[in-house]
Amino acid sequence: MSKVKATITMSLDGYAAGPSQSTENPLGIGGEQLHEWLIPLKTFREGHGGEGGEVNASTPIAEGILGNVGATIMGRNMFGGGPGPWGDEPWQGYWGDEPPYHHPVFVLTRHAREPLELEGGTTFFFVTDGIDSALTGARAAAEDEDVSIGGGAGVLQQFLAAGYLDEIVVSVRPILLGGGARLFDNLGKPPPALRQVEVVDAPGVTHIRYVRAS
Amino acid sequence: MSKVKATITMSLDGYAAGPSQSTENPLGIGGEQLHEWLIPLKTFREGHGGEGGEVNASTPIAEGILGNVGATIMGRNMFGGGPGPWGDEPWQGYWGDEPPYHHPVFVLTRHAREPLELEGGTTFFFVTDGIDSALTGARAAAEDEDVSIGGGAGVLQQFLAAGYLDEIVVSVRPILLGGGARLFDNLGKPPPALRQVEVVDAPGVTHIRYVRAS
Repeated sequence: MSKVKATITMSLDGYAAGPSQSTENPLGIGGEQLHEWLIPLKTFREGHGGEGGEVNASTPIAEGILGNVGATIMGRNMFGGGPGPWGDEPWQGYWGDEPPYHHPVFVLTRHAREPLELEGGTTFFFVTDGIDSALTGARAAAEDEDVSIGGGAGVLQQFLAAGYLDEIVVSVRPILLGGGARLFDNLGKPPPALRQVEVVDAPGVTHIRYVRAS
Repeated sequence: MSKVKATITMSLDGYAAGPSQSTENPLGIGGEQLHEWLIPLKTFREGHGGEGGEVNASTPIAEGILGNVGATIMGRNMFGGGPGPWGDEPWQGYWGDEPPYHHPVFVLTRHAREPLELEGGTTFFFVTDGIDSALTGARAAAEDEDVSIGGGAGVLQQFLAAGYLDEIVVSVRPILLGGGARLFDNLGKPPPALRQVEVVDAPGVTHIRYVRAS
């Protein structure tokens, strides 16, 4: 059965990005520390065209981010670029010529743009009419594989509040950012109910897997 | 070596108590769910004069809350009663005739009050001149045992921001409260640095132990 899932890193004080996010500093001040568990991994390096890297207790979690995933949904800030219209020769985003997705990616934005087809099977589709439309497209594209909600915090919140998220892995880093983009906010009333199903003690991070409580 | 330590439960969205805390509802709306990992334990029941109860992966964490502790510091709301002067016949708080501490407890308050000696070795001392004074008293009382910071969130924040906390166990419950008393807030700039040293996967809760990063 196809799932809607997310793996997202937060600081111990609950932020998915530090303060003062910008195009130059997409994860905000101090936010680069959030993914220090992920970047050194062999899984991550190979996914981004590199070599070498570590294998540790975080490896299965990193493999799960894109494992059995047939489509990804992300916000515009995670795709790349500042706010406003795209312009005549829009930037192709943070992800390079061959993004690590290798499947369709649906980018939530208020500004229309033609699909962007890059190497390795990744095509970015720009969705201007909200999460339901993005999810419909992503489910169709994913067929019997899962749909991954990439982030950022605002996109994840919309999917949580709507009750669309079947599973979420929260990777808690032992850092205090003191401000930024709060991960769990604007969750609706009552907030969704979760059940803890797996805990992974890994170097510099604790991964906790939750599923929707039925 | 004597440590200053704390064990505190938070919801996945970062709250140590739900919204609308009051004397009748000291943990706020939904906040009673926070301690559902602790209340059924044999360790907890016996500490509160009861019998029976469960033994599970949370047991060592529960034992650590008061294990090797020679003094506890808490805020007035955790002791009990609303704000303002104590009055002529003040309430003796939430903890009953024989509180589970069995050692001196220093209560941070703006209102002076005579020490309250209860059964079983627990005496509440009321400290009106801040955390440094409370810590001095608690260290002296604890001798070579540890000092425990009981809570609530505001008290813990003051000790974290001052750099006095050597160790903290954060017990993350799989619940979203949607509002309340944020645990990690007002931490100073830069916030303190932590190191993850232990992770415990227990029924309905993940315990993560952090120490001060040197």
